[in-house]
Amino acid sequence: MPKDYRKHDVVIIGAGPVGLLLSVLLTRWGYNVRHIDNRPVPTATGRADGIQPRTLEILKNMGLKRNIMAFDPARVFEVAFWDPAPGGKIVRTGTWASCPAFLDARYPFTALLHQGLIERVMIDDLRKNGNDVQRPWTITRFETNNVDKDYPVEVDLKNLDSNVTETVRAKYLFSGEGARSFVREQLQVPIRHKDPISHVWGVMDGVLRTNFPDIKMKCTIHSDHGSIMVIPREDNMVRLYIQIASSTDPDFNPRKTATVEEVQTAAKNIFQPYYCEWDRVEWYSVYPIGQGIAEKYTLDHRVFMGGDVCHTHSPKAGQGMNTAFHDALNLAWKLHHVESGFADRSILTTYETERKSVAETLLDFDNKYAALFSQRQPSSSEVHSASNSDTSSHTNTSAPEDENPFVAMFKANCEFTAGYGVAYKPNILNHSADHTFQHPLLLTNHPKLRTGRILPNSNATRVADANFVHLENEIPCNGSYRLFVFAGRNSSPKKDQHPQLTAFANAMQDPKSFYSRFAYPTSNRDTHHEMDNPHSPLFSIALVLAAKRSEIEISDLPALFHDYSGRIYADDVWQRAVADAKAPAHAKTGFEGEEGGVVVVRPDGHVACAVRLVGEETVEALEGYFATFLHKQLVQTVKTEVSPAKVRAQL
Amino acid sequence: MPKDYRKHDVVIIGAGPVGLLLSVLLTRWGYNVRHIDNRPVPTATGRADGIQPRTLEILKNMGLKRNIMAFDPARVFEVAFWDPAPGGKIVRTGTWASCPAFLDARYPFTALLHQGLIERVMIDDLRKNGNDVQRPWTITRFETNNVDKDYPVEVDLKNLDSNVTETVRAKYLFSGEGARSFVREQLQVPIRHKDPISHVWGVMDGVLRTNFPDIKMKCTIHSDHGSIMVIPREDNMVRLYIQIASSTDPDFNPRKTATVEEVQTAAKNIFQPYYCEWDRVEWYSVYPIGQGIAEKYTLDHRVFMGGDVCHTHSPKAGQGMNTAFHDALNLAWKLHHVESGFADRSILTTYETERKSVAETLLDFDNKYAALFSQRQPSSSEVHSASNSDTSSHTNTSAPEDENPFVAMFKANCEFTAGYGVAYKPNILNHSADHTFQHPLLLTNHPKLRTGRILPNSNATRVADANFVHLENEIPCNGSYRLFVFAGRNSSPKKDQHPQLTAFANAMQDPKSFYSRFAYPTSNRDTHHEMDNPHSPLFSIALVLAAKRSEIEISDLPALFHDYSGRIYADDVWQRAVADAKAPAHAKTGFEGEEGGVVVVRPDGHVACAVRLVGEETVEALEGYFATFLHKQLVQTVKTEVSPAKVRAQL
Repeated sequence: MPKDYRKHDVVIIGAGPVGLLLSVLLTRWGYNVRHIDNRPVPTATGRADGIQPRTLEILKNMGLKRNIMAFDPARVFEVAFWDPAPGGKIVRTGTWASCPAFLDARYPFTALLHQGLIERVMIDDLRKNGNDVQRPWTITRFETNNVDKDYPVEVDLKNLDSNVTETVRAKYLFSGEGARSFVREQLQVPIRHKDPISHVWGVMDGVLRTNFPDIKMKCTIHSDHGSIMVIPREDNMVRLYIQIASSTDPDFNPRKTATVEEVQTAAKNIFQPYYCEWDRVEWYSVYPIGQGIAEKYTLDHRVFMGGDVCHTHSPKAGQGMNTAFHDALNLAWKLHHVESGFADRSILTTYETERKSVAETLLDFDNKYAALFSQRQPSSSEVHSASNSDTSSHTNTSAPEDENPFVAMFKANCEFTAGYGVAYKPNILNHSADHTFQHPLLLTNHPKLRTGRILPNSNATRVADANFVHLENEIPCNGSYRLFVFAGRNSSPKKDQHPQLTAFANAMQDPKSFYSRFAYPTSNRDTHHEMDNPHSPLFSIALVLAAKRSEIEISDLPALFHDYSGRIYADDVWQRAVADAKAPAHAKTGFEGEEGGVVVVRPDGHVACAVRLVGEETVEALEGYFATFLHKQLVQTVKTEVSPAKVRAQL
Repeated sequence: MPKDYRKHDVVIIGAGPVGLLLSVLLTRWGYNVRHIDNRPVPTATGRADGIQPRTLEILKNMGLKRNIMAFDPARVFEVAFWDPAPGGKIVRTGTWASCPAFLDARYPFTALLHQGLIERVMIDDLRKNGNDVQRPWTITRFETNNVDKDYPVEVDLKNLDSNVTETVRAKYLFSGEGARSFVREQLQVPIRHKDPISHVWGVMDGVLRTNFPDIKMKCTIHSDHGSIMVIPREDNMVRLYIQIASSTDPDFNPRKTATVEEVQTAAKNIFQPYYCEWDRVEWYSVYPIGQGIAEKYTLDHRVFMGGDVCHTHSPKAGQGMNTAFHDALNLAWKLHHVESGFADRSILTTYETERKSVAETLLDFDNKYAALFSQRQPSSSEVHSASNSDTSSHTNTSAPEDENPFVAMFKANCEFTAGYGVAYKPNILNHSADHTFQHPLLLTNHPKLRTGRILPNSNATRVADANFVHLENEIPCNGSYRLFVFAGRNSSPKKDQHPQLTAFANAMQDPKSFYSRFAYPTSNRDTHHEMDNPHSPLFSIALVLAAKRSEIEISDLPALFHDYSGRIYADDVWQRAVADAKAPAHAKTGFEGEEGGVVVVRPDGHVACAVRLVGEETVEALEGYFATFLHKQLVQTVKTEVSPAKVRAQL
């Protein structure tokens, strides 16, 4: 008989961004999470600091953005490029929006503040929900075994202060330990290094006194004396990334280091003709750029890894923390759907395939970016002699024709650096023409509703309280699939004048539908003040009507929507991007015509599939999509011709 | 020799909205404020709850809005009107934007949460700045005397817990005690009652369970069973104002009261055909509507009163707390300008004239509003027989032609209820054609830049960091006059291509100018990281250039602006209200032509005067305006033909 160990749903090692976000989500969703970190206190200074536009949306969706913005982070809207000028000086050669308008971001800027403040917001949220990070605790051993079938992972923990040890059992173990990971080592998962060399960089946070005009901007500076990247920070601070050594140096030594004073002298030279003195230095560190990716994110789908454990790279593109957040969010809802008995365990395989593919793209980008940044740039005279184009007028975010490869690459990669490049490939979750399940109503290859990407943002008026809202953020990050129902311009909100919507709603309420099968066990549940999950913990619905708010009476709508009274929207807000559209939110999402549709959005905000809204056949199509990955026993009750075995074979 | 009493700049009695805002501002600006309240703890529930759109702007300008919005107040964008329907039922007869688009509000909604939470944000701010409210303390005696010329007000305070007493001396005493004011009584300032009658109302906060469709909206309900006003609140709560008695009742008794159960029964009847049950009641109170206004706000310009001490009225128009905030802000900066030696004491007289005039308007409005609301409304059949107009289609915020007087009045008064009706009349501070000082460059009767009203809002790009900003809020509520310099379309940002701007800037920097005379005493002051007051604690400048951000080099601008590098803006943001304008912020503010201008905005955000930007004559005009109320000794150094005596005679 197994010893009576303490049991947890998930044990999380490491309280950096990836561990914290995972912990926050699973704790909110009711899981028993044991979270430890080997540092005695949270991050105090330095480290990661850039929150991408897309990450801001995720934080907003989680209700954490306001607390983060309360620290007044610097906001980067544009990047300035400085290049060598005659006489060892530097000159601005252009600027470019860091998140250009074509990306249509809700928050078109990067927010910069130090990792410790971001962590603090998440730790506060954990505490609010009755959990906390235990410090300083470390992991000393773990194994997956069959001693307890429900809790197959055995983990040995040790308090580094008291040397107390404890063995616990868990359903899952997650390592967010950072680049030096005990778990990864024990699993003998190799790191594949994309780029054998290194560039050595110094990074310094502090308050600078300078007449350099772009000190409040993000800048990349290439000078005859070296290269610097400037990142504005909260509280008048600035972060400088300063190149200390490069493999192209004749005497390159990847272990080369530099003192604070040496780096400050280097910065002084690079900033010429501008002066630069330090009021104070808050944090300084030297590191070689090491680029690597873990071959596996999990071996047995019980022990998972994420964040820096799985991918390390240059910090300068500001991707590390953001990628970690995506890792955590991606894993969190999949664990949730499996553990709530909704989805088949096989969906857990998509964590590695989706996230590793993004990491590969990131490393490719970072590799090119870092190499270009570390190269000596041609001096301005070289550029001028090599080019006869006109560079006299730089309008805002315009590109001079003699633009250097670094600038060109930066622009081409804006989508990626802003976080909108996270595009999951087709798989069991992200529908495509290659998906096992096909149905004539499924919209494949839709130009706007691209599966694996996020839902286009749009504005609307909430019917219940006439509030102006951001539609894409109305359903919070609650672990549920989000069904956005766009009623279509062929539907009237008036009683009995919305046949497609009514047929759809009735079919959803059929007790055999995928929607009703996952309803709460008792119908006595009090959902009067419940906005998002009145029927099922796994589905949230939002209904968008192509009508003015005053034309809509919720009581005239099909019964399904009566319990969603706080999630009914009037598509009556003018939006510049679709200035002439009759139903702007419909048009912006991709329903330009008369007919509406249902967009299935994964709990992480990525589009799963989209279906034309015609009536009960719409539910049939949704049914078929979900059936491909529902828990085995549940699939068998589904009226569908798709074989679950065939479905799992696709994985 | 006077006894050695403790000395304070200001003693504030009462920590409701008016006392707290005054305390927060004066504490931030470095004054020694003694703040007491006779309640042992801050407001826990109930009382005022509506923050107007204009008040949200003020709170934003003070950096307090975010902390208030963190409590997730309900947001009221529209008001629904419900009227009697046949069979004792009610029917929605229309809706109307609570802050319609024509008001061009930055935040076009009312935020609702209970007064205690709003107070908490201000108390936190006090503490952050090293002050606090002392409780439970009361005032027992005060007098203005000549024992200490610098601290002419003697105040006796008493701790209600310990019975400890203390006499202190102050430069000013402020009463924010609420309707029952010891200070007002002692000063024998009479309350003039505008309306002898009263309506008796019950007010109940709590969580309601109902199928009434507009429970998340602000509603006015008139039924054959009585009248209710519905106000949504934070945390699923709702506030109901329920009429208990009216002077039009045959047996009217202004002392009539009602139990919670009686009010709940009344509400049940009024809500028919909708059900309505209470999950819980958080707060309940009964009060007669008493409308009154104090004859004086001060007798000697040493002891001041504000908020409910000076004006009481129905709470239903949501004006009490908002008016209190305006009172406090209005007085705070005037005390500051006098005490910093900048302005003549005579400007203190404008506190009463400005604020009392607003209170008179408020009471007129409230009187009519409350009377109309309390009247029995004609039943729907009566209305229909009296009207033959079409009421079948109510488009959003449309007006049916048979609109009742209540709705008509509501619409007409939107500007006032949203807070944009606070329009100070011409006086020494608010320039007009009748002002003592006239100058050909002063813009009088400008259709957009209306003195005494707030600056029109507009968007811009901050040059230093490319941030998108709300221009009207860029200079914080720091007690300084705000000079918004719109360079004009006839000005280029390129070096030496802005002759008007250069001449203006040079004249401002002339040591004899009003701007330079109030500079910090030492030029050694370190202003490297100072955004708003690099030269003078009394003036903040923002420069708006009709150019794209990338065309602007701050170092090419006149020297005056180099120390304002964080307050230089590019007028390059498209704005829908002026969709075709070449320089949108210029056009929106009122500079549609080629020429720019300087707008002088008071520290409370109201426009003082506006001057054409032509060069040093612009400074001459500003000089003349300020000279009319500068401190006496300082006026004499001013090169102007205006006699200070004449100026003060104007008051």
